[in-house]
This record gives sequence, C-alpha cells and structure tokens, in this order.
Amino acid sequence: MAEHPHLAAYSAHPDGRPDPRYSAASKPRFVQWITDVCTRPYDRNWLDHQHEIGLRHTRTAKNRTDGADAPDDIPLRHLLAFTAPVILTTKPFLHGHGHSQDEVERMYAAWTKAVLLHATLWARAYTGPDDW
Amino acid sequence: MAEHPHLAAYSAHPDGRPDPRYSAASKPRFVQWITDVCTRPYDRNWLDHQHEIGLRHTRTAKNRTDGADAPDDIPLRHLLAFTAPVILTTKPFLHGHGHSQDEVERMYAAWTKAVLLHATLWARAYTGPDDW
Repeated sequence: MAEHPHLAAYSAHPDGRPDPRYSAASKPRFVQWITDVCTRPYDRNWLDHQHEIGLRHTRTAKNRTDGADAPDDIPLRHLLAFTAPVILTTKPFLHGHGHSQDEVERMYAAWTKAVLLHATLWARAYTGPDDW
Repeated sequence: MAEHPHLAAYSAHPDGRPDPRYSAASKPRFVQWITDVCTRPYDRNWLDHQHEIGLRHTRTAKNRTDGADAPDDIPLRHLLAFTAPVILTTKPFLHGHGHSQDEVERMYAAWTKAVLLHATLWARAYTGPDDW
C-alpha cells in the first residue's frame, strides 16, 4: 500500500506526511489477518471479528485504536480493488516449498476464495442493512 | 448461478418458480459483459456502462429492462462473493488453445484483476457517494 500514494494517504497525517507510528501499529494486524484467514475456524467469533475489521476501515472506527489523525475512512472502492494485489502477489510465495504444481494451484484457489470472502464481509460496514 | 438456490431466487418469480424468460434475457448480457471485459477500451462510456450494470443489480433498476417480477435487488454480498467462481471457473478455459503456461498464467491474472475492477465499479450503486 505504501507504494501507492492514493492508498498511502489513508495511513498518513492530514498534510500527507507519513505516520510511521500508525503504519507500524497496523502492519502486525495485517500479518495476523493472513494467519487468521489460513488457520481460524470460520465461526461466529471470526464473523464478528471480520465485521470489526470492516468497521475499522470506515468512519465508525478508523484511527481510533491507534489514536491516528489519518483520513477517517477508506472508500470501499479502494478496499475492493486492493483484493487484486492481495490475491495476485501471493502466488510466488506458494512455489518453492516442495508442493506439487497441483497443490500450488489448489492453495492459490483457496486463497483467492478466502480473500474475496473476507472482503465481502468487510463491505457490510459500508452499506445499509438492506443493501449488503 | 442457477445451481445455487440462494442466487437462483433473484432470477425467479416471487414464489420461487423459475422465470425462463428473464433468465434467457439476462444470459446474453452476461456473455456480452465477458466480451466487453476483454475487448472494450476502459473509457468514459465503459465506466458509465459499468455503473448502469451495478444499478441493474439494485432497487434502482433491477427487473425493469425485462419487466420481471423477481426480487428487486441482489444484496451486495452475493455480487461480491460471486466474483470467486467467476474468476476460478475461467482457468480451465485458458488451457488447451496453444498458449504457453506463462501466457495462461498472465491471462488468468489479467482476468482476475479485470473481474475485481468491474465488481468494484458495480459496488458504487450500493453505497452513498461518500462511502464508495
């Protein structure tokens, strides 16, 4: 995200200066999310936690955990479009660990579905109850 | 979609009976969309057309083109989640036409990105102007 100015702005101060403290606080949560996607049971707690992650992208809860002064919401289009690099950039990491090509393809398909499922759940925070 | 009752309902009559006329009218538009994704320039007309497709999933415009009496909107979660099969089921069709494995992978990555871009644009019809 930091490579893209239109996304980096959402982790920066209002005047555009980077906020290393906020970025440093966010990164371990992203790392934890990847682990959760791959290991947690998709149960009620998981579902509630995904909605909380969705809310933390919106005016309801963005910045609050870290007391940041970054823009107070990330528009839905950026969240949805960013699923593409989250999916695509993972592929190379699946190779080179002793899995067959077929296993790699199946892991990649599972990751693709899982990312899209999570983004779908996060989108709930952006819509009225009748629209999601 | 017809294989999934929770999705098929959105093309059916209010009592759940299939509406073959509506389904038959919709299918060529889906086929045309695939062609458009792969061939049209992504210009202002394309952008306007994608918003129109988004609206046709919502209360604003669903059913109107065909005078159908199906449910009057498709919740956003179904539209977003359905990107997964639209992406994944395409892979087999890319093989067997004389392209190298690398070309197949690059076509698949391009298709993945294009589907997610289009779904992102369609989501605009579901949100307030400040949220999309």
